[in-house]
Amino acid sequence: MAARLNKLYTQLNNAGLHAIALNPGPSLTYLSGLHFHLMERPVVMFFVPGRNPAILLPELELQKTKQLPYQVEVFPYGENPSTWDDVFIKAVKTLGLEGKRIGVEPRAMRLLEFRYLKASAPEADFPDATASLAALRVCKDADEISRMRRAVKIAQDALEATLPLIKIGMTEKVVANELVTQLLHCGSEPEMPFSPIVSSGPNSANPHASPTDRKLQPGDLLVIDWGAAYQGYISDLTRTFAVGDVDDEYHKIHKIVQQANHAGRKSGGPGVPCAEVDKAARKVIEEAGYGPNFTHRTGHGIGMEGHEDPYMRGDNLQQLEPGMAYTVEPGIYLPDRNGVRIEDNMSVTESGVESLSDMPREIRLVG
Amino acid sequence: MAARLNKLYTQLNNAGLHAIALNPGPSLTYLSGLHFHLMERPVVMFFVPGRNPAILLPELELQKTKQLPYQVEVFPYGENPSTWDDVFIKAVKTLGLEGKRIGVEPRAMRLLEFRYLKASAPEADFPDATASLAALRVCKDADEISRMRRAVKIAQDALEATLPLIKIGMTEKVVANELVTQLLHCGSEPEMPFSPIVSSGPNSANPHASPTDRKLQPGDLLVIDWGAAYQGYISDLTRTFAVGDVDDEYHKIHKIVQQANHAGRKSGGPGVPCAEVDKAARKVIEEAGYGPNFTHRTGHGIGMEGHEDPYMRGDNLQQLEPGMAYTVEPGIYLPDRNGVRIEDNMSVTESGVESLSDMPREIRLVG
Repeated sequence: MAARLNKLYTQLNNAGLHAIALNPGPSLTYLSGLHFHLMERPVVMFFVPGRNPAILLPELELQKTKQLPYQVEVFPYGENPSTWDDVFIKAVKTLGLEGKRIGVEPRAMRLLEFRYLKASAPEADFPDATASLAALRVCKDADEISRMRRAVKIAQDALEATLPLIKIGMTEKVVANELVTQLLHCGSEPEMPFSPIVSSGPNSANPHASPTDRKLQPGDLLVIDWGAAYQGYISDLTRTFAVGDVDDEYHKIHKIVQQANHAGRKSGGPGVPCAEVDKAARKVIEEAGYGPNFTHRTGHGIGMEGHEDPYMRGDNLQQLEPGMAYTVEPGIYLPDRNGVRIEDNMSVTESGVESLSDMPREIRLVG
Repeated sequence: MAARLNKLYTQLNNAGLHAIALNPGPSLTYLSGLHFHLMERPVVMFFVPGRNPAILLPELELQKTKQLPYQVEVFPYGENPSTWDDVFIKAVKTLGLEGKRIGVEPRAMRLLEFRYLKASAPEADFPDATASLAALRVCKDADEISRMRRAVKIAQDALEATLPLIKIGMTEKVVANELVTQLLHCGSEPEMPFSPIVSSGPNSANPHASPTDRKLQPGDLLVIDWGAAYQGYISDLTRTFAVGDVDDEYHKIHKIVQQANHAGRKSGGPGVPCAEVDKAARKVIEEAGYGPNFTHRTGHGIGMEGHEDPYMRGDNLQQLEPGMAYTVEPGIYLPDRNGVRIEDNMSVTESGVESLSDMPREIRLVG
């Protein structure tokens, strides 16, 4: 953890930042090990080079600071919200932050905390420090990759245990609940990266569907997009199944997506621009005439979060480096009919790229 | 849903607001039925009196807008973040929001979305509209209360199914996983209000503990704080158990908390200030000499969120009204030793107050 702080301070220095103020979320966990369930009470952790990290939090969370692997300055507050402004002012003053450049993470920071910060340091700037934090987290060490590998194995085991239980006439929601149960039995942490997507027939044509009360019917494609969490790291996989007999066209688009997934997986490696991974997968789908039906990028980084740097987008020239991890998840969506997506989790090695997931990608029959 | 929009527009009018801009979260779900899993892509829904609601979202979420119970204006954007500013500018211009008073919810709004909004409407004000939205949601109708009642029943059934499985030597994490499995089997939605707290021995003295690898030992108190979700509404309960033989003092503090819980539950009703509920429970604990060990307020509102208005705090003079729902959860925490908390979910009726939860509150033996 101390090594991570040192890297952070180098990043802050490079970005001309005097400090960073973080809301609970993956970056704060990466730098402190702490978890919070954010509700109505503000929580902010400050990292200021040259002094101990500091945390502003409710008194009833004070016990958590005992788990920290380093000394911290603590700014606790009581139950009455009218006293909270003063605690922010005290923290900003003690840490000498007024008028400084304090990096923030807009994706994790709530307006609740930001307004307290801004009010307590009206002359400070709050630049977006997302890139500095992403740079810290984007290359995983061997320990992080091994946790991700375990999260992949848990997810694969859980789906294999669920598949025999899926029957025609079950609702998407029932399948999703069963899958979550199996994920827990196989060792996932209860706080999962996302609720599984279980989408059938026309719902499978929506890449971000939530499970509904729709019952599985013969002729449906069934998209399952799911993941597990293990020691703070996650997996994010997708496979597509046939419910009973499905039309030839659906077999055809499944095969195309499988080829696109293969091309995308093989294209990665150190020095390869992310755009190349997107292009490799997209080319297969475009050449088969389904380009307009592949409506999203080919993948995203993965680690502590479901989506993080680097993004496999056609316009992203960022080069892959050893330790980076990302998804390859091409899809074809035929609106109001059926959809296919096949998603694997990749990690970049010194000499190439490895697929952490290995569950069969061929179309399989369920129901 | 149309009635909710009309009430919203009345609230906005009363608060002098021209519009409201919401991030995904309970308030957006309350007004639209929509759910989103927020990651790196911004999503904002606008409610402007006198015109259709509008939503700004990624193209790949477009399908979701088809579930809406009313017509909406849609501002979709593609995968390249450099194009997103323009979509915000277009939305603000089309909706005539520049220079206006646009209410926001700081607890749900991320800095990510707020900065796009602010950049696209630099002359607008963004006042805190939390109170207007809380006023809409704070009094539940019969349908909402019946969902909460079901969420309570699911939670109680799940814990009753878990208790016989708890053994000395099991870790807190294993107990928590088993409880989540039972919650799903009993009918909870997979997206639960919070991960169960299962805290034993010294960990139980931390009101906001997360389950650890600590094994249950004879002599421990075991605090389980858990809830279920049913059709968007939640429950939030706590019971405290004895693992094997526990010291007399722990029996004593359990009995005091049980009496405080009873006093808190009985004190509510229409016209009663929230402060009275807090005082009724706190008085029991103070008179028993454990006042300093009851380190938090007595309860919080409950509904779509784990914590919402009204808050049972000694300084909150807000009066209870029929339809309001809240927790009563006094506790005594002996640092580094053991803790007790007993939490029920209450709903205010026309003539008094009802406890939605009825699981035994006496100390029970597990292990």
